[in-house]
Amino acid sequence: MTRDILLLTDEAARYAEALEERGLNDVTLHVAESLDELDDQALAAPVALGKPALLCKVIDRMPALEWVQSTFAGVDALLDPALRRDYRLTGVKGVFGPLMSEYVLGQIIAVERDFRRMDRAQAAARWEPFPYSGLRGRTMGIAGLGSIGRDIAATARHFGMRVLGYKRSPGEVEGVDAVYAGADFAEFAAAVDYLVLVMPATAETEHVINATTLSAMKPSAWLINVGRGALVNEAALAEALEQRRIGGAILDVFEEEPLPGSSSLWKLSNVVITPHVAAESFPEDIAGIFADNWQRFQGGKPLLYEIDFERGY
Amino acid sequence: MTRDILLLTDEAARYAEALEERGLNDVTLHVAESLDELDDQALAAPVALGKPALLCKVIDRMPALEWVQSTFAGVDALLDPALRRDYRLTGVKGVFGPLMSEYVLGQIIAVERDFRRMDRAQAAARWEPFPYSGLRGRTMGIAGLGSIGRDIAATARHFGMRVLGYKRSPGEVEGVDAVYAGADFAEFAAAVDYLVLVMPATAETEHVINATTLSAMKPSAWLINVGRGALVNEAALAEALEQRRIGGAILDVFEEEPLPGSSSLWKLSNVVITPHVAAESFPEDIAGIFADNWQRFQGGKPLLYEIDFERGY
Repeated sequence: MTRDILLLTDEAARYAEALEERGLNDVTLHVAESLDELDDQALAAPVALGKPALLCKVIDRMPALEWVQSTFAGVDALLDPALRRDYRLTGVKGVFGPLMSEYVLGQIIAVERDFRRMDRAQAAARWEPFPYSGLRGRTMGIAGLGSIGRDIAATARHFGMRVLGYKRSPGEVEGVDAVYAGADFAEFAAAVDYLVLVMPATAETEHVINATTLSAMKPSAWLINVGRGALVNEAALAEALEQRRIGGAILDVFEEEPLPGSSSLWKLSNVVITPHVAAESFPEDIAGIFADNWQRFQGGKPLLYEIDFERGY
Repeated sequence: MTRDILLLTDEAARYAEALEERGLNDVTLHVAESLDELDDQALAAPVALGKPALLCKVIDRMPALEWVQSTFAGVDALLDPALRRDYRLTGVKGVFGPLMSEYVLGQIIAVERDFRRMDRAQAAARWEPFPYSGLRGRTMGIAGLGSIGRDIAATARHFGMRVLGYKRSPGEVEGVDAVYAGADFAEFAAAVDYLVLVMPATAETEHVINATTLSAMKPSAWLINVGRGALVNEAALAEALEQRRIGGAILDVFEEEPLPGSSSLWKLSNVVITPHVAAESFPEDIAGIFADNWQRFQGGKPLLYEIDFERGY
């Protein structure tokens, strides 16, 4: 078996260093930061580590491909039914939960206490206290109860929030006060003060936020999308926000990224836009997962976090 | 025994309603929002509930005074040695910890991820990701390990931070990785990435942050003062911030409040200023504490959260 690995990511240098620190010295790394840098030897590797959005453009040209380790949690670029599925695809778990929790709770606190208003007052040297509410007793709804969703749930609970969850099939989840499932999304959406999307992008979850589910939400409720842009019908959301039919939205992911400058979302005062940074893939973390899976791959053992192409996660 | 109570606070209406909801119907409330509204009957009450900054100006005119319940955690206005101490003074505990935790962690996340920079990018419709660090593995130092300090410690731990503590006398504290005490403040300050002040204002804690202790801090460290303004030598802090000798400061309390418009702190880009709002006294919470203590007072039992005038807390 060759020990050739294709490393295809725009952070290749940091990854190469992180892999070496994880003890992967006796391998041949074919490093490419873009598609232009690929050569035949790189494409002959049986193993690839990299960004799904780049890898999806080259896997059909990799004759010996056996295993792809994604550097991102979102692998939907590799799930296109037109692409090959005769290899093992592994995702990333366990490292994004804490970062997502920081982002979601940090943003919610910033909204509840209106950090932006306090910044404006400071800029004008104005001492301007105003009332606010604490998080205690507010209800957070989390759509998607994988490792990230459960981490956010535990953090919301720490702050005294009530936590509702939504997932595909019914069943209790520890750390969640009540679980909605299947067709009950609108009922779930109606019950929460903050609706957090952390679902994968699949045919079933596409546009789960649309005119109907938006109209079910409380007029004071905020939507937080840290999952995938495809979960939200952005035109319907922009309309609901412009008409103040919901309280606001905190958006880290979008149907098209970068979000086009022409989007009306940028200028709405009840919207917080961040550039897909809620949970970064720190190469040091991902290298640890890859090194672990590399040992398993060499030993013929089951890989961690293997994706089911049919389910999409 | 009379059932007369002086209620002296600028939120008198909300307090009166909250007290009624707590079942205090069979009392005579003498309500005043300012000193001008006080009459002889109000001053004859044996019990007072209100803001220390207002009450300190009238307690010497209350001949029957037996007990004062503060509506604030900070009672130092009533600890002036020139004032009478022949009554019982009770503070507020248990309700501010969660609000303080929200403020401290929310502000730290906003600093680590530079929410202000993301706001500026959004205002200009610019998609501008930039690197940041998670909280995991960073060190928070908490000076003051009462109920508020311990609540912040638990929250920092939830986010994977290492927690160091400082208090007057040595001794382990659950939920704190290491405790510094007494003369070791500079050593403690040198060890942390975020230094959170939640100590009471006493003769011993005055200007615990000064040129010497500031110079002990890491050049990257941030100071967070949610305790009392008197803990910080503001001139020394402004100088350290201007010269970038520390990373920055998040300040909710000041030597003089409102912070004068002439203060150089307002305009520093590495300073976050908020108008003493980190943990509001919600009348609904304080009314619960008062109602509980009122029962104890009537029954001749020990009061909760009684302040020791000598210690100052």
